Amino acid sequence: METLAERMQTLGIELPEAPDRAGMYVQTKRCGNSLYISGCGPSLKGKPDITGKLGEISIEEGQEAARRCILNALAILQRDLGSLERVKSVVKILTFVASKPDFYNQPKVADGASKLLVDLFGKEIGCPTRSAIGVAVLPGDIPVEIELLVETD
Amino acid sequence: METLAERMQTLGIELPEAPDRAGMYVQTKRCGNSLYISGCGPSLKGKPDITGKLGEISIEEGQEAARRCILNALAILQRDLGSLERVKSVVKILTFVASKPDFYNQPKVADGASKLLVDLFGKEIGCPTRSAIGVAVLPGDIPVEIELLVETD
Amino acid sequence: METLAERMQTLGIELPEAPDRAGMYVQTKRCGNSLYISGCGPSLKGKPDITGKLGEISIEEGQEAARRCILNALAILQRDLGSLERVKSVVKILTFVASKPDFYNQPKVADGASKLLVDLFGKEIGCPTRSAIGVAVLPGDIPVEIELLVETD
Repeated sequence: METLAERMQTLGIELPEAPDRAGMYVQTKRCGNSLYISGCGPSLKGKPDITGKLGEISIEEGQEAARRCILNALAILQRDLGSLERVKSVVKILTFVASKPDFYNQPKVADGASKLLVDLFGKEIGCPTRSAIGVAVLPGDIPVEIELLVETD
Repeated sequence: METLAERMQTLGIELPEAPDRAGMYVQTKRCGNSLYISGCGPSLKGKPDITGKLGEISIEEGQEAARRCILNALAILQRDLGSLERVKSVVKILTFVASKPDFYNQPKVADGASKLLVDLFGKEIGCPTRSAIGVAVLPGDIPVEIELLVETD
Repeated sequence: METLAERMQTLGIELPEAPDRAGMYVQTKRCGNSLYISGCGPSLKGKPDITGKLGEISIEEGQEAARRCILNALAILQRDLGSLERVKSVVKILTFVASKPDFYNQPKVADGASKLLVDLFGKEIGCPTRSAIGVAVLPGDIPVEIELLVETD
């Protein structure tokens, strides 16, 4: 059975450095076996940022932003849990997509997040419940912000 | 004591066919006794869609859309739980209302959802905690999307 | 060890009267040790309202609105739990900031909420996970709405 570390290597996924907090909050907090992860943006240290709203930037850029949000969330989980193997289920993601009022493809953008989770954890553990909504604007003009709920041991 | 099936008949509620998924996610996922339901839209198979933003469409249309979101959620719960009797509590709904920037009556729209839940399950089980917010735009130009958290056995 | 009542006095915090419900929902609902609190707005009984969107009103007004949302949530918790000492952890807040499309400082606004929680409960109990997003509009033209999840005994 392949470990997550091996699967990441196969998939060419390299975890970024965990992002800095952007205010007065913690990045994870536990309630029983539920672990809540604060809204993650797409900024990766050492990479140019993706900014702008969907309707201005392309769906592909939005999907890449959603993917990066998950990379940041995984980096936070790796740091706070010690190992991603402790993620028993990705229960829920809430995907906020900064959108011009005539952009209607939020689910396609959110699929950039779901795909990485499913590729990494497999369908049963990784495929979450989800809402994908079009918000007016996000902090720092990022196109996507995602908060997560995972079940852990 | 009236069963939920009997109450539905009394109320004239007919569950629709469960909606299709609109991307890479699951429609329900369990974490202990908490069951999370992905954001549901108002589209009912075989009925004309309700689209547009509040401020353009009427509050009554918005309430009907909110009601249909719950009908879809109930259809999903019926399918995934086998019986709605297994819903012990509707804990929380998050109501996203696509809104023009000068539409301020999101709670009235969300009441279309709450009313159906309370009519069906009664106040103690069915009346949820709630947020009702005005978002810029929703997938496919639907006016309302609702995600739910229910407690089950 | 200082009680919460004593700390509130030291900090000059006076709990307002719990706000009225703005529709068909309950203000708190329990699921195991998780207590969900419905989205709270900033209106305090007997005080002039803060209305408008960020980008029109100042960040300081937005922070004060966020602080008042938490005051209302605390008043609800005090009433429904009997004592704030029963709050074991503020797990999560979701901060909706009504924003003009070019306002990017939602986290600064949300810090008005986090600060009060940390001042009152201390960092370990009070500092929550968080998302801060810019929504198109909120009920009654309020600038901030916050929903909470707390862990109780």
